[in-house]
Amino acid sequence: MRRNPERRLALIDAAIEVLAKEGARGLTFRAVDAEAAVPPGTASNYFANRDDLFTQVGGRIYERLLPDEATMARGMEGVQDETRYTELMHELVERVSAFNSGYLALLELRLESTRRPELRAVLTKRIRQDIDDNIGYHAASGLPGDSTGVVLLYLTLNWLIVERLTLPDIFTEQEMRELVDAAVRRSMKA
Amino acid sequence: MRRNPERRLALIDAAIEVLAKEGARGLTFRAVDAEAAVPPGTASNYFANRDDLFTQVGGRIYERLLPDEATMARGMEGVQDETRYTELMHELVERVSAFNSGYLALLELRLESTRRPELRAVLTKRIRQDIDDNIGYHAASGLPGDSTGVVLLYLTLNWLIVERLTLPDIFTEQEMRELVDAAVRRSMKA
Repeated sequence: MRRNPERRLALIDAAIEVLAKEGARGLTFRAVDAEAAVPPGTASNYFANRDDLFTQVGGRIYERLLPDEATMARGMEGVQDETRYTELMHELVERVSAFNSGYLALLELRLESTRRPELRAVLTKRIRQDIDDNIGYHAASGLPGDSTGVVLLYLTLNWLIVERLTLPDIFTEQEMRELVDAAVRRSMKA
Repeated sequence: MRRNPERRLALIDAAIEVLAKEGARGLTFRAVDAEAAVPPGTASNYFANRDDLFTQVGGRIYERLLPDEATMARGMEGVQDETRYTELMHELVERVSAFNSGYLALLELRLESTRRPELRAVLTKRIRQDIDDNIGYHAASGLPGDSTGVVLLYLTLNWLIVERLTLPDIFTEQEMRELVDAAVRRSMKA
């Protein structure tokens, strides 16, 4: 197995684009090589098999979806009230939607995980961790609301992003903004 | 094109199973024939092309996801309070989850619709109609809450079902029940 970390990352990022464009069945070593514009046979030197590729893609998407340090630090500053909470959730929806190939690839991975127990185990662990991190971040921030509200927002905003990326004409941009506002406000009311 | 309506329906139902099991790329006429246990070449006599098949599958899933008349009628009887609302939403989650191949196939169709404008148009119209029907049903029922709450519940419960069907170990059954309870209660608080 080859060990050039930059090349490996470039191949995984290419795999994300292939997944989003072609679906899980289209994710072959050959398609990854073509998308990454590297010689045929390259990807097969970096990944043990397709299971390995699927698993590494899952981890990488989460890495790329996280906010950068500056955004995280800014989030902890200033008044932690409903207005700030709403602002953060709008930022989150924008950030995730902007990496639309990553989000679509993640949906493909979820569907693929119904057929691959190993991938399901990796995704379950990663996503449960992500939910727990969100709950921890929220508790430490002093933002209003409780942990149930954090999980409800996670559910609501995920499907809102699904709508936006797969059937963008279901809701107008204005309706989507109002739904984020309402989701934050109501999620806090225990 | 053949005209036997029962045969057509059996082929579409077989296509739903193929979609859920194999993904959008696996949905070929050959795979549908095999799943429906009919002679090779049958599906190609019933559908103009794959686009036509995708579109008909989308409509059929919605048809099968709707509650039956008895359930609808029962929903309109008795006290229309928060307890009833919660009960109805638990029933909805159970009904949709029980047709898991249909729900997974619908997710596959959504992803496929990012590549097929015609399918996207059909799904957008059908799903927007479904949301409007839910809003209308809610308004006519006398259940508590407003139309924004109906849409928020639609978003929240859809992703909860995604979790349940794709990564069932993220939340326990008990956590899922509590999330439905909380989603209903908080969605009503404008």
